[in-house]
Amino acid sequence: MISAPTVNSFTPPRRTLMGPGPSDVYPEVLAAQARPTIGHLDPLFVGMMDELKSLIQYAFQTKNEMTLAISAPGSAGMEACFVNLVEPGEKVIVCRNGVFGERMRQNVERVGALAVVVDNEWGEPVCPKAVEAALKANPDAKFLAFVHAETSTGALSDAKTLCRLAQEHDCLSIVDAVTSLGGVELLVDEWGIDAIYSGSQKCLSCVPGLSPVSFSPKAVAKLMSRKTPVQSWFLDQSLVMGYWGNKDSGLKRSYHHTAPVNALYALHEAFRLLALEGLENAWARHKKMHLVLAAGLEQLGLKFVVAAEHRLPQLNAVYLPQGVDDALVRTQLLEEYNLEIGAGLGALAGKAWRIGLMGFGARRENVALCLKALEEVMN
Amino acid sequence: MISAPTVNSFTPPRRTLMGPGPSDVYPEVLAAQARPTIGHLDPLFVGMMDELKSLIQYAFQTKNEMTLAISAPGSAGMEACFVNLVEPGEKVIVCRNGVFGERMRQNVERVGALAVVVDNEWGEPVCPKAVEAALKANPDAKFLAFVHAETSTGALSDAKTLCRLAQEHDCLSIVDAVTSLGGVELLVDEWGIDAIYSGSQKCLSCVPGLSPVSFSPKAVAKLMSRKTPVQSWFLDQSLVMGYWGNKDSGLKRSYHHTAPVNALYALHEAFRLLALEGLENAWARHKKMHLVLAAGLEQLGLKFVVAAEHRLPQLNAVYLPQGVDDALVRTQLLEEYNLEIGAGLGALAGKAWRIGLMGFGARRENVALCLKALEEVMN
Repeated sequence: MISAPTVNSFTPPRRTLMGPGPSDVYPEVLAAQARPTIGHLDPLFVGMMDELKSLIQYAFQTKNEMTLAISAPGSAGMEACFVNLVEPGEKVIVCRNGVFGERMRQNVERVGALAVVVDNEWGEPVCPKAVEAALKANPDAKFLAFVHAETSTGALSDAKTLCRLAQEHDCLSIVDAVTSLGGVELLVDEWGIDAIYSGSQKCLSCVPGLSPVSFSPKAVAKLMSRKTPVQSWFLDQSLVMGYWGNKDSGLKRSYHHTAPVNALYALHEAFRLLALEGLENAWARHKKMHLVLAAGLEQLGLKFVVAAEHRLPQLNAVYLPQGVDDALVRTQLLEEYNLEIGAGLGALAGKAWRIGLMGFGARRENVALCLKALEEVMN
Repeated sequence: MISAPTVNSFTPPRRTLMGPGPSDVYPEVLAAQARPTIGHLDPLFVGMMDELKSLIQYAFQTKNEMTLAISAPGSAGMEACFVNLVEPGEKVIVCRNGVFGERMRQNVERVGALAVVVDNEWGEPVCPKAVEAALKANPDAKFLAFVHAETSTGALSDAKTLCRLAQEHDCLSIVDAVTSLGGVELLVDEWGIDAIYSGSQKCLSCVPGLSPVSFSPKAVAKLMSRKTPVQSWFLDQSLVMGYWGNKDSGLKRSYHHTAPVNALYALHEAFRLLALEGLENAWARHKKMHLVLAAGLEQLGLKFVVAAEHRLPQLNAVYLPQGVDDALVRTQLLEEYNLEIGAGLGALAGKAWRIGLMGFGARRENVALCLKALEEVMN
């Protein structure tokens, strides 16, 4: 027998999380998650899932029946959208202005479909004119996929206009809302978004690990009329819906996989807190805190990656000042101030910091700590 | 705007979980999970992951470097094994003696591979002779896949013999250990298992949602020499390992997806408690509690689905007595005693109950409660 390692219980420090996620988690969410586990088919648990579904519908501003949380992180939510809707050989216009647009392209490739990439510079939003040109040039395209809030750069794209273009060209829209949900305006039904996924660990201030998703009736019709099976058994939403069910149909829930019971308690609580605050209030709070932070960062001489009119309030990417040691600053912030900010990712690795103001993290005390700590550490 | 639903915080009752999982969660695990969230690239978190890896290696009794927890439930662990190792057109011998063998077959189909099914009756273990015949009849088979502990019936198969047969026929073995890990003897290296997955919510008594997996060097070589890309981006272990890393290599961890931080605290604590108890002690405790339960169930006139020599201690499937209303009994147990036992699944739906004695649930007080409550409710 291989002998047992001697390991102590893990006691994490109390950090202030101002990176690209996970964000500061609401204490109420941590408490909810620690409540006793019950069965994933327990009638009381199923009742909680029904509430959760209506809370997710509210946050997405949708009446889509196929609205639920994928039992895995946002990357799996992204994959769920592509593997359920896109069939081998189909054409997808993919907008790429950062890491996550590129990840979308890889997902398209892995389902054996054809990606037509519309590139924009890192830090710029997706250009609607370039998308329109691509849609016109590819009348056989069936999907338009783009990232609403690019977490790698902090750029916000005009989802409303992009979805209108998709509709005008008979394409279904697939939208990454991992960082946008709860932080900026997002109206799924009004904008005509067909498939959308988010993550628990950004502006929802829930623990990481779950991905809220929603599919429009048109997307469901596409899923149901597939000629080929969904390549993933775990993410096959036609099976998953047997478990999440239709709260009005009264159908018995059937086992698909064991739901992450306690994580779903946490997500229920996080969405409940968002509903209590109200979406529009949450959006306004993110905006207000961003403006305070941005003014302070500029006073420190830091330059934003993204032009003011396209900035995400919840993800502030700033260039490293000349002569500053990236890793040293972040390590000092972490070790001396228990403050996490994010490193640059992809093309911005080593060139920028990403400062998150997400959900519970978008508070005046966090902004003040970040500005003062940065000031002290950079000097 | 769609208005916000009014929802209260969810307060689950305190159940005793004696179904097929989730099992009773250790209070220490719930407490660990509620600790403050830190970043998924925080050096302290990475240190915890290294400890967790060595704890998973201990539980699996393996030195496999590619040992980690998939950030999703056991069904995703199953899928991870198939999509990483099996390529389109390859042949897989799949043993089917319950729901989860059939799920394996569906996974094989969805990767575009060919499944040769070896069937055994529900309630029987996989028959090594039938497997040997299938291996001989299919010299081009590359994999043997089977379920060690069939959760739908409570039958334990002889993994040691089956893996020896796989090796003799140059097949890689893919083993479902969702319900076996921590409950019965399981020796990954000694038995020569090539790919194995489990679940957090069975004999580990952790919250549901994670899947510990391990791949042998031979399995890793197969993954690294693939001719086609892994069809899942999220489950592509060649990418995931960039994040989990090699604790000896000192390589910097690279971002793949945001790890479920708090759920991993919980898993670390659950494996730590298993290591503290010691694997052999845990196996003996499950066996001992099973014998007490089995004697009591037989006194109540209940008949086991599985012959005594093939029974899983941790999953006791018994036929419903004649004239007993399945749903009524389970509802009464749940509502009056806060006790959950499992319904039958698949071919046993409506015909059997499944009584779990898993991890923290394998205690004398649980056995006593279950026996007395069943006695009262059935009369």
